[in-house]
Amino acid sequence: MSLIFSNYPPLNTDSETYHGVFTDLLERADSIHIASGYISSDAVIDLKRIVEANGGPHIELNIGMHYFDGLSKQQAEAVRDLDALLRSMNLGGVYFVVTFPFHGKVICFRSSGNVIGGLVGSSNLTNIVDSKISRQYEVDYSLPESDFMELDRFITKLNRTTARAYKDIDVKIVEGKNSLLDEQYGVSKAEVKVVNSIKANPEFEYEFHIPLKTNDATKSNLNTFNGKGRENKQGFIMPRSWYEVELIVPASILRQEGFPLKGIRGESIEVITDDGWTFRCESNGQNGKNFRSHGDLKILGKWIKGRLEHAGALKTGELCSQETLDRYGRDNLTLAKIKGSDVWFLDFGVNSE
Amino acid sequence: MSLIFSNYPPLNTDSETYHGVFTDLLERADSIHIASGYISSDAVIDLKRIVEANGGPHIELNIGMHYFDGLSKQQAEAVRDLDALLRSMNLGGVYFVVTFPFHGKVICFRSSGNVIGGLVGSSNLTNIVDSKISRQYEVDYSLPESDFMELDRFITKLNRTTARAYKDIDVKIVEGKNSLLDEQYGVSKAEVKVVNSIKANPEFEYEFHIPLKTNDATKSNLNTFNGKGRENKQGFIMPRSWYEVELIVPASILRQEGFPLKGIRGESIEVITDDGWTFRCESNGQNGKNFRSHGDLKILGKWIKGRLEHAGALKTGELCSQETLDRYGRDNLTLAKIKGSDVWFLDFGVNSE
Repeated sequence: MSLIFSNYPPLNTDSETYHGVFTDLLERADSIHIASGYISSDAVIDLKRIVEANGGPHIELNIGMHYFDGLSKQQAEAVRDLDALLRSMNLGGVYFVVTFPFHGKVICFRSSGNVIGGLVGSSNLTNIVDSKISRQYEVDYSLPESDFMELDRFITKLNRTTARAYKDIDVKIVEGKNSLLDEQYGVSKAEVKVVNSIKANPEFEYEFHIPLKTNDATKSNLNTFNGKGRENKQGFIMPRSWYEVELIVPASILRQEGFPLKGIRGESIEVITDDGWTFRCESNGQNGKNFRSHGDLKILGKWIKGRLEHAGALKTGELCSQETLDRYGRDNLTLAKIKGSDVWFLDFGVNSE
Repeated sequence: MSLIFSNYPPLNTDSETYHGVFTDLLERADSIHIASGYISSDAVIDLKRIVEANGGPHIELNIGMHYFDGLSKQQAEAVRDLDALLRSMNLGGVYFVVTFPFHGKVICFRSSGNVIGGLVGSSNLTNIVDSKISRQYEVDYSLPESDFMELDRFITKLNRTTARAYKDIDVKIVEGKNSLLDEQYGVSKAEVKVVNSIKANPEFEYEFHIPLKTNDATKSNLNTFNGKGRENKQGFIMPRSWYEVELIVPASILRQEGFPLKGIRGESIEVITDDGWTFRCESNGQNGKNFRSHGDLKILGKWIKGRLEHAGALKTGELCSQETLDRYGRDNLTLAKIKGSDVWFLDFGVNSE
C-alpha cells in the first residue's frame, strides 16, 4: 500500500522500485496473475528463467494490446517459449485479450490460495526487468489488502471473458529493426553522417579485435545471463537478465599499446557504433580484462545480442555458441580509436546485414 | 480509495468509470495537477472549455511522452490554446517533461490548499473524456488519503526538476492521418476494395444530400459541443464534448421516399464511408430529424470534424462556420442506399483531399 516511482535522477524519491516490489512479492508467491497491455521479450524471458530456476510459480500472463498491434519476432519467440514451458509443467500459460485492446497494467500475487499483493499503474510487464538503463519513468501503486481480492477477481474475469490461449490463436508478426536501444538511459543515436564518414574514411590511432568467446564460456561473455543468479535466504533464485554481457579481453590484447583501460581508474570511454549508437564503455575487473558498457551490462548486451537475434542467428533465451556466430558471420568486435578524437569506433557489422 | 475499471462489456464491474471519478473530484477542486504520458486533443480541449465555463480550476498539465514522440497538429493546437488560456487567466499552464520520457499517469486534486484526491493507473489524460466509444480498457486506482500528499509532492517535484513550460520550448509536429476513429468501439475499417468498388460503380436505390448547417446553428449540428453543458447543484458546469455532432435533417428530405427513419423504431443503419470506415447511424428525435451515430454522438463528429481539422479547415475548439465548410470545399453529406443491400454509403469527400 504505497506509491512506487522509477527513481531515476533528477527525480529521486524514497520509494522502492517496481522491480524491487515485484521481486519481493514474487519470492513469497506460488501463483501470479498478470494483465499487461504491452510486454518486452526480455521480461518474458525473465519469467521463463525464473520458472526454470525455481520450478514455479504458477503464471497466468494475459497480454492486452499485442493481439491488435502484433508482436515482434523476438517477442513472439519469447511468448511461445514461456507458454510451452508453463503448459509442459502444468503451471499456467500465456493468453491474449482479443475482445478489446486492454491497456491496464496489473499483477496479483497468491500464496497457498490467499492473495498477498496487487500492483496497479503505468508499468507494463517490461518494467519487471531490473534495469538502470530504461529511461522511461513510471508510477505504480502497491494495493492495500482491502483491494487485493477485487483486483484478483478482476484478472480472473478478464481471462475468462476476454482472453484466448496463445496456442489457440494466431498473432501477427510485425517487422521491426533492432530497437532495443531506443529510449535507454545512457544511449543516444549518433548522427548518420558522422557514422558514414567514419566508415568511408577509417583513420584509426589504435585498432583491436576483441574475440567473442562462446563454447568455452557458457556462463560468461555473451552468456553472462547463464551465470549464477541471486539467491535469497529462502532459496528463491532470481536469474541474471538475458541481455547482460561482459566480454573477457585476452591478455595479449590488454598488453598492446593504447588499449583503453579506463574502467580501472573509474573512467569510461565514449563509443560510436557502426549501426549508429553512442554509449560509454569501460574495462573493469582484474587488469581491466572485463570490457563492458558503463552503468549497466545490458547496454552492450542489447547491442550485440539484439543484432544476433535480429539477424535470426540467435534464438532468444538460448546459449550463444560458435554456430550462433557462424550464422551471423562474425566472431569478434572491432574497437578502434578515431584519430584526433577521444571517441572509439565499435564495429560488429557484417556484409549480409 | 478504490479500483476503477473501464466497465465495457463483457467485462462489467461495479466500479465507477474514470470519467466519473475524475469529474466528481474536479467539481470539488480549485486546483488540479496532472502528469500524463500521452494526451489527446479532445481531452485538452475539454480542459480548456471547463475553465472557460467555470473560471477555473487552476490547472498544471505536465505532458510526459510527447516531447520525445512529437505532437499531431491537432494536439499542438489544443495544447497551445489551453496554455494561452491558463496563462492569460493566471491559472497555471502546460509543461512538457524533457529530462526523460515520463510514462506515468497521475492526477492530484486540491481544494483550499488541501489535497482531496489522487489518481494513479493506466489511463492517460485521454480517458477524462466521457466516451462510450473508446475501445481501450483501462485500470486505475483512487488513492487513500494517506497517499494523497505524497503523490501531490511528487507531481510538484516532477514539474520543478524535469519539465519546461510549453511557451519556452519547441515540440516537433508529426504528420498523421485522421486517426480519431481508430480503436473506437462500434467503428471498423471497411475493406478498401469494397469502398473502391462503390466509388467506381455507384448504384444507389436512394440518395440524399444532408446539408451541414453552421452559421444559424452555433449550438447544434456540427456545433453541438457549444450547447448547454451539464450543471451540478453547486453550479459547476461540465461542457459538452468537442466531437459531439447531431445533424438536423430538413423536413423536405425527411418526407422523401426511402429516407432511413430507423432510429424512431429503435433500429439503426449500417453506413460505409468514402474514406473507409463502417459504423451505425440512426434518425432520432421528433419525426426522426436528428441524424446521428448510434451509441455515441462522437463517432459521427470524429468522422466529420476530424476531417475538417485534418484538412486545416477547422481549428480545434472553434465554431464551425460557413467559412469552415468553404475552406473544406463541401457543405453537405451524401447518404445513399447501395442497391441490393441494406448498407448505406456516407460520403464527405472533396477532390482536394
